[in-house]
Order: sequence, then C-alpha cells, then structure tokens
Amino acid sequence: MSSTLIRNLTISDAASALDAMRATRPLVQNITNYVAMTISANVLLAVGASPAMVHAVEEVDEFVAISNALVINVGTLSPLWIEGMQRAAKQAVALGKPWVLDPVGCGATKFRTDFAVEMSRAGPAIIRGNASEIMSLAGAAGAGGKGVDSTASSDAALKAGKALALASGAIVAITGETDYVTDGTQVVAITGGSALMPLSTALGCALSATVAAFAAVRPPFEAAVAAIAVYGAAGAAAATRVTGPGHLPAELCDALHAVDADMIARYATIRVVEEVNV
Amino acid sequence: MSSTLIRNLTISDAASALDAMRATRPLVQNITNYVAMTISANVLLAVGASPAMVHAVEEVDEFVAISNALVINVGTLSPLWIEGMQRAAKQAVALGKPWVLDPVGCGATKFRTDFAVEMSRAGPAIIRGNASEIMSLAGAAGAGGKGVDSTASSDAALKAGKALALASGAIVAITGETDYVTDGTQVVAITGGSALMPLSTALGCALSATVAAFAAVRPPFEAAVAAIAVYGAAGAAAATRVTGPGHLPAELCDALHAVDADMIARYATIRVVEEVNV
Amino acid sequence: MSSTLIRNLTISDAASALDAMRATRPLVQNITNYVAMTISANVLLAVGASPAMVHAVEEVDEFVAISNALVINVGTLSPLWIEGMQRAAKQAVALGKPWVLDPVGCGATKFRTDFAVEMSRAGPAIIRGNASEIMSLAGAAGAGGKGVDSTASSDAALKAGKALALASGAIVAITGETDYVTDGTQVVAITGGSALMPLSTALGCALSATVAAFAAVRPPFEAAVAAIAVYGAAGAAAATRVTGPGHLPAELCDALHAVDADMIARYATIRVVEEVNV
Repeated sequence: MSSTLIRNLTISDAASALDAMRATRPLVQNITNYVAMTISANVLLAVGASPAMVHAVEEVDEFVAISNALVINVGTLSPLWIEGMQRAAKQAVALGKPWVLDPVGCGATKFRTDFAVEMSRAGPAIIRGNASEIMSLAGAAGAGGKGVDSTASSDAALKAGKALALASGAIVAITGETDYVTDGTQVVAITGGSALMPLSTALGCALSATVAAFAAVRPPFEAAVAAIAVYGAAGAAAATRVTGPGHLPAELCDALHAVDADMIARYATIRVVEEVNV
Repeated sequence: MSSTLIRNLTISDAASALDAMRATRPLVQNITNYVAMTISANVLLAVGASPAMVHAVEEVDEFVAISNALVINVGTLSPLWIEGMQRAAKQAVALGKPWVLDPVGCGATKFRTDFAVEMSRAGPAIIRGNASEIMSLAGAAGAGGKGVDSTASSDAALKAGKALALASGAIVAITGETDYVTDGTQVVAITGGSALMPLSTALGCALSATVAAFAAVRPPFEAAVAAIAVYGAAGAAAATRVTGPGHLPAELCDALHAVDADMIARYATIRVVEEVNV
Repeated sequence: MSSTLIRNLTISDAASALDAMRATRPLVQNITNYVAMTISANVLLAVGASPAMVHAVEEVDEFVAISNALVINVGTLSPLWIEGMQRAAKQAVALGKPWVLDPVGCGATKFRTDFAVEMSRAGPAIIRGNASEIMSLAGAAGAGGKGVDSTASSDAALKAGKALALASGAIVAITGETDYVTDGTQVVAITGGSALMPLSTALGCALSATVAAFAAVRPPFEAAVAAIAVYGAAGAAAATRVTGPGHLPAELCDALHAVDADMIARYATIRVVEEVNV
C-alpha cells in the first residue's frame, strides 16, 4: 500500500515533514507518565508543536476533538488514568485523529502488559517502544524486561515488531542503538542519537510525543521515520555539547529548537532495510 | 481604594517587596499541575520563598493554616484534586491567607472552564492567566483558546480582565508580551521577559507561584505587579545567557536567585496605564 | 552486631560500594512524590542504577518482586497512593528486599505524620529525612517543621534519630549541613554537599533513592553511609561549577556519572562519632 512512499523516504522527507509540522504547530494531547510530562512538553515546544497535558475522563472527549494528535503513555499507570486513556483513544479513532501508544515497561507486570495489549488493539496509528517492550507486547518469547530499560537489542525485536504491526494495524517503531520503523512488511532503519540518551530519563517518552506531532501532518510510517530522524539528529548534536547526561535534556531542547535539514543530514541516516515491491 | 498606592508603583517598590518577601521566606502551598511542580518549586526556592506541594483533601486544612500563601493551578485537573482545591481555597479565605488562581487552559473544555469559573468566585486574591484564559474566564466572546497557549494578545484581553476583576473581586494579571495588572479600574503595564519563555513549559505557572509568594507580604495589586516585574526582569536577564529554550529554566532560577533592584531596573518597566483619581 | 563494620567505614568503603552498585545496576522502584520523580530517575541513571516509577496497588507486588530495592517517599501523599505504599512495603519485607522511607514533611499535618509513623513501623531498612522530619517522626518535642524544609539542625536531631532507630529497627540518616547515620548506638558523620543544594527542589528525595540503590548491594548502615558520601561528594563537586541553584541538578547528575574514589576523597569525609565496643 505505502511501499512506494517508503522506498523513497530520505533525510529530505524528514526535513520537509519538520517544516510542515512547524507550519501547523499541532496541538498534541499527552496522557503520559509523571516522569515524562515536563520533558515531553519542553521537547514539543522546542521542536515547534503545542503540548497539552489533559487526562481526566471528564474532559478527554472534548480535548481530543480540539487536538491534532494524541500520545498515550502507560509509564505510571493507575486505574483512574486508564479510564481517561481508553476514552481518549476511542475518541481519537472516532474523529480520525492519529494517536501514538508508548507501552512503557510492558512485560514487567500483568497489569501493565494486559493494558498495553488492550491499547494496542484500540487503533493506535503508531506504537513506539524499546526492544523489550515491543517483544513483550508482541508476545514474543524470551523478551524478559528489566524495569523500563531495554534488555534486548532492537535488532532482536524486529521480528516481533513486524508481527505486532501486522496484528495491530499500527506502524511499529523500535528504538535502540539503531531504530527501526515497520508496517509489518517494510522496514526502515534510522541512526542518530547518543549512548548518553538512555541515561537521561523519559527521552524515549518525549520521542513518542514528537512522533505524535509529526503524525498530525504526515501518514504514520513517514511520520515515525521523520520524527525519529529529527529527534535522533538533535540528540546526537546535543551529545556533542555535554560531558555527561545532566545537561542533555536542555541541550536536546536547544537542538530541537534549531534543527534543520543540515543538522538532520549531518547526524542521522535513514535506510530502507526491507521493501515490498508493488 | 488602593489608587494612591497604585499611582506610585515603581521598580523601587518591586525591589522593596522582593526584600520583604525574602526576609519573610513565606511558605507557599502549591496545588498545581504535574508539569509545573518541579519548576514551581525551583523558582520559589531560587527567589527566596519556601515551597510545599500538598493537595490531599485530608490535609489541606491544616497545611493552609501553616502556609503564608496558596496557589491553585488547574492544569492537570481531575475530580480528586478538585476536592482538595475547593477545600484549600475555602480554608485560605477563612483564615485570611491570600491565594492565587491560575486557570490553565480555561476555555478548552466545559469541565475545565466550569471549574475555573467556580474557583474565580471562591475568593482568590489574584487571578493570573494568559489572554485566552482570562478572556474565556471572563466570558468574553471570541477568546477561542488553543490548548494552554494563548491565541489572543494580552492587550485584547485587558477589557475582559477588568470585567473579571470587578466580577470576582480579585486582582487580575494578564501575561503576554506586555503584562497587565488590574483591579477593574486601574491598570498597570509591566514589560520584561523574553520571547523564549513561552517555549519552556510551565514558566507561567511558576510565575503564579511567585505572585503567591509576594502576596504573603504585600497587598494583591502591589504583589502581582512586583512579582511580575521581578520575574520578568529575571527572565529577560536569563534569556541573554541562552541560545534556545533548553537552558532557560536553569538560567531563570539563577537569575531569580541573584535578582536585585539593579536587575529589575535594567530589564523591566512598570507603567501606570489607567488610574482613578480619589 | 555491626560495630566492627561501622568502625572501619571509610571513603574507600564508599568507593567499593559504588563499584558494586554500578556492577549490579540495581532496579530501584520509586513510589515517590510528583516533584521528585524526574530528578530521582535522573540521579539513579547518572550514578549507575536503573530506576522505575511504579505505584499502583494493582502491580506493586509483582514489581517489588523484580526490583532490587524500593524507596517510599510521602511527599505528595494521597489515599490512593497510600494503598500502593503499604502493599509495596509489605511485599518488600516479605521478599527480603531493602526499602527506604523518606518521611517528607512529617510533622506538618496529622495525616502525614500518622502515615509516616505507620510506615516507620512497616520494616524500612533505612529512614532518611532532615532534622525536623526525623525529630517529628521520633516524637521528639519542639521539632516544629516549616513545610518540607528543615528548621532544626541535624545535630539537634541526632538524639531523636537514635531513638527512632532503636524503635523502628531501621538505620536512620539525618541529612543537613553535616549528615548523620545511626543504628541507635553507633553514629557516623558525613560531610559533603553544598549550601546550594537545599535551593534546588527534591535533591534530598533523590538522595533517598540513591540510598536505596546502595542498599541493594550493601547492608543498610554501610549503604546509607556510602550513598550519602558519594552523593555529597558529587554535590560538592557540582557546586563548584555553578553560580546559583539553577544548573545544580544537571551538574549533580554529571558529577554522579563521573564520581569515583578520588572525587569522594576530595569532597566528602566519613567519621565515626560514636561507636560501641564488642
């Protein structure tokens, strides 16, 4: 279906998606975990989107209606928030707004895994997680999962990610040393980022929010690839300016504020790994 | 009533209020949104106040009693928090403690707008918001409201702010490129800040907390003007030291820690726009 | 019982505990306040542990089982969180996992004090607080308590801390200008840190999380002393690189990422104040 598009995905497409996103300044609703809220908002503001954190079941219907995209992140899950997440996802699907699922810590407990599975069936446009989370969510055996950090490489999770994409109908993004985006048949690999990024909390969560911002202006596969390339480039550029993880969030925001086609080209690569002929 | 005071409000009064606030080190209770908590606490500590985040209905009566001022911010609203907010506001009024209302996102949903209206009638000393929030809260037509970012200029909201001040009995502060403080008849305009500030999340929320700290030592009109001038000066000074929004919160805290009469005079202006003769 | 160990506690033991902790990369479950979540996660990642923020009663049993240590911090307390805290503590004790109690704001309200007392009886390995919190928790008269900042010196609280240690069976750490760790009979004093640290929010909370990480690899007394020495050294080193509190959290994380035996020796001291002969 989208193979022609995917085959042509380049750094230039990522830059064009970035321009389109900034021109639209999409309102991104975040129902996310407590740890990720501030950095998610700052990342969205820096890259050029407009964030809002709204989770109460009493207002999600109305808020989804005025938002351009939604991210649902299960990091600090609790029953009261689940209600708001379910309702927001349903409303997003009903109104044709793209939403991104971030299954933080999937595999760690039954409560968390069950809910992530439920949400993966609720029509997300994109699911973004690390290798363990994606493998767990896909039901792949041996995924394990140590807290919210990944214990499996993203390469090993690619097979699981493809299965998850086919089962859920969502584009699946697996982030790690190399990032992969797949619709179940086609796979794009993106490099960028820095080994320091996993040492600063919630930068993966903030990436999911960035993916949602791009999904407001591009189809899901292209949005995921573009957002990851932009974010990875900014992260790699930011890492050149720090000596430890402490200042990385601030430098990342500065880089996201400044990122352009040159920075993307310099610090990120996009490569089609598998493609389907049409 | 307070016109004599207002007519004379100067940078020197702001500096004097700052000194008085620091000498008292007021305990400011924050019932605020998840995104704003950390930066609000850091801003209060940096400028010389003592923050506490306490929201449970089980303890707000006691905590308001030992606090010197209170801020209620509806950013990440939910029913359980509403109970604590209602009770804290009631207790603050009963004990004569000043409290500040920050109607984040007012106008975006009925749930949020209704509660903000309810709280505006619960005796706040000061209401601080952006132009959209104030216009929405005042019932002004055409305010719109795009998430929590302002889509209307603060100038356009001034009329609504004056009406809101008269209706609520609160001092109304409308922040934007130029900030306005009004009691419904008199208006003071303050300049300061930086175009980068709206690109770092919750700096408006943290300003509301700062206003509360000043309200512990000065009457509401003077407190709002002084806090906004001090905060705006610090923000402008901080902006000279950054190239993007990333490091702005840290630089703002450093500037608030260092701010004095000279910095206020250099980076902020206070101007009486309308006054009432007595 | 542990007097031989205590008598020999040195900077070298702290460095050895740090190496052991980093080699293990313990998963530390945090049930902590909203203000402290992000900085606690960043501090744990920077020093070499793996943080997770999981609080729902529906999953704490399972999550404690895969964690290596737990911290329970009562900062932004509410009834729903209390259930998760009670259950997590019970499970930690049942499974022999060490857990750290941080009684934030104990003494400020009956709700908070009662729950802190309850938790102090639920088998914490270590209780860490400032002087006011420890005095209040110990039932010492005259502790007062102004919000969450300490109004009593840690020296004055030492007597209360020893009583609390004997009553609770926990190691008690009282942090302030000088930090003390006691089991009720023996006392170790640690210096380090900076006067700027109390001006940046939740750095005490993040220390409690660090103590939990060390408790995963060392007995409680030694863990508390080592964690406080490492953290205090990193804080003192970080403070040499800032001019105000704004950049301190970022610099602290960089210092925790880099801290080694040399930095500990340069910026911290460990001294046995009282010992019991065996």
